[in-house]
Amino acid sequence: MCYNDASFTSEEKKMSDKKPHYRTLLAAELRQVEELLLALPGPVTPQVTEAITGLITSGGKRLRPALVLLAAHLTGADMERALPAAAAVELLHTATLVHDDLIDGADLRRSAETLNVQWGPAATVLAGDLLFAQAARLATRAGSARLMEHFAETLVVICSGEMQQLFRDRGAFSPLTAYYERIHAKTASLFGLALACGPLLADAPEPEVEAIRHFGHLVGQAFQIADDLLDFEGETATLGKPGGADLRQGLVTLPVIHYLELHPEDDRVASLLREPEDEGLLHALLADLRASPALERTRETARKHVQEALPLLEHYPPTPHREALAQIAHFAIERRY
Amino acid sequence: MCYNDASFTSEEKKMSDKKPHYRTLLAAELRQVEELLLALPGPVTPQVTEAITGLITSGGKRLRPALVLLAAHLTGADMERALPAAAAVELLHTATLVHDDLIDGADLRRSAETLNVQWGPAATVLAGDLLFAQAARLATRAGSARLMEHFAETLVVICSGEMQQLFRDRGAFSPLTAYYERIHAKTASLFGLALACGPLLADAPEPEVEAIRHFGHLVGQAFQIADDLLDFEGETATLGKPGGADLRQGLVTLPVIHYLELHPEDDRVASLLREPEDEGLLHALLADLRASPALERTRETARKHVQEALPLLEHYPPTPHREALAQIAHFAIERRY
Repeated sequence: MCYNDASFTSEEKKMSDKKPHYRTLLAAELRQVEELLLALPGPVTPQVTEAITGLITSGGKRLRPALVLLAAHLTGADMERALPAAAAVELLHTATLVHDDLIDGADLRRSAETLNVQWGPAATVLAGDLLFAQAARLATRAGSARLMEHFAETLVVICSGEMQQLFRDRGAFSPLTAYYERIHAKTASLFGLALACGPLLADAPEPEVEAIRHFGHLVGQAFQIADDLLDFEGETATLGKPGGADLRQGLVTLPVIHYLELHPEDDRVASLLREPEDEGLLHALLADLRASPALERTRETARKHVQEALPLLEHYPPTPHREALAQIAHFAIERRY
Repeated sequence: MCYNDASFTSEEKKMSDKKPHYRTLLAAELRQVEELLLALPGPVTPQVTEAITGLITSGGKRLRPALVLLAAHLTGADMERALPAAAAVELLHTATLVHDDLIDGADLRRSAETLNVQWGPAATVLAGDLLFAQAARLATRAGSARLMEHFAETLVVICSGEMQQLFRDRGAFSPLTAYYERIHAKTASLFGLALACGPLLADAPEPEVEAIRHFGHLVGQAFQIADDLLDFEGETATLGKPGGADLRQGLVTLPVIHYLELHPEDDRVASLLREPEDEGLLHALLADLRASPALERTRETARKHVQEALPLLEHYPPTPHREALAQIAHFAIERRY
């Protein structure tokens, strides 16, 4: 166990011992989302159907669909229309993972070989495209032109963000600005969309949509920061990929940024970005980083985002759905699910 | 000049000498479509903007947006909403080309280096994704949930079709069935969508949408058949890529299918599909195929699709827009634009 449990408040600790509320509360609806997802592959060969089904069923805990459904309950949206929106958000997420693995040249995802390893790049591009297409089709089934606009806008944000990352002159922005831009595009924007679906379907006024979307952005940031922490705290067996992978790929995440704030004189990070093959340097740096307060400081930053997010829920009556959303926000920092 | 002009009827010959009607008739609207397309790249670096703009401006004669606009005029759609739909269809087409070049490992497109050669696969995947996203965003600006459904469905057809092609057991279907499925997914489905946008925006009844979409499918088939002909008739200088490229890639197109109908005993096609590197065999086969009636028979097949399409326009009054659509159908066989 590599988690620093002492860093949790007692309330968080208590919550983390329980099964997340949303999985009980939304059990029936999440099953319906699953059915929508599995009905998908369409007119393709059994081999493609099997691979696409594999990608879909390996998809974790359905956190993003849960966010759609909880916000839909909170805002009084028609749940029949929220279900395809929830499935669409999950599928959009899956599509971006498929292309990401190709772009990063990743071999493993959730401890399984990536599609890129199994099929090669051509089929992986197409599989991702097909998932994007199916996501768009599901989103149209929610029957809201306004929701489709937000859906398309979010896809633009996600793709532009990744393009930025490939092409931007690294020196032109502070690492912290670049980091927050990247996690917004990669994670927070989709959390924001997930939260916004409900109020959009309920024809809520724009300020309400924006407030609840902002909740999603903050929780998404915390979630991604916790994920980036895990890359330093975890080992291959628990992560399904090797630890320190981000640094190996030249990605400067928040733990490294906080480490450099504490040790501005340590030029090993810069050396490593120039020579990512230097495993000795990487291991020495990882050991010092893990021994420093950088990881705890990173978790504290994530916790601040959650603390900023929670009051945004106070607009709504204290229902079990609101409680489940608050619990997800707390859990975002922990990332055990 | 490698076209067999004698194969045209005198009417088609006369039409082919003129500038296509649509370019005059739609000049102002096509300029507005161009503005919508060029306003696109969004929050990305100058290098990305330049490359995306390059992809967009190299985009031929804007045939697909013209189809959207002409059908919109025919059906009395709101042209303010048809303009973003026209731009969206063009952008969807551009996005599929970007990923296709990556999947095919193509070096040249419209005589320019493909993005894949300039940037490598990672950025090419993302550029295509960004174009898909921008296409979806433009489509939402037409403000029709029904149009978005058709848009997403078409994207599913295009992507599933390409997946089929990669994975399907070639022996399981007749080459002719496989060919028509492929050109439907690759070309005809998007022509159908282009034609359907107008009646969808005009809230036309479903049978009218389907009739005009069927016109698009038939013209799209003819257009793709003419393109596949060109691969046998043209040379590198006019094609922007080497002749016989489809066969080199193991693609059996209609000219080859018609050749095999005429020469069922010729097993060189099968040999070539097993050994695509055998340039001597390819050149011998190409020479025999060009000397046979297979190419003329192929053009005749394309012409039949156009003849089947034209009566579908008779439902509409004989306006210049209807005339321009009929002319595009005739021109589809020729593919000089």
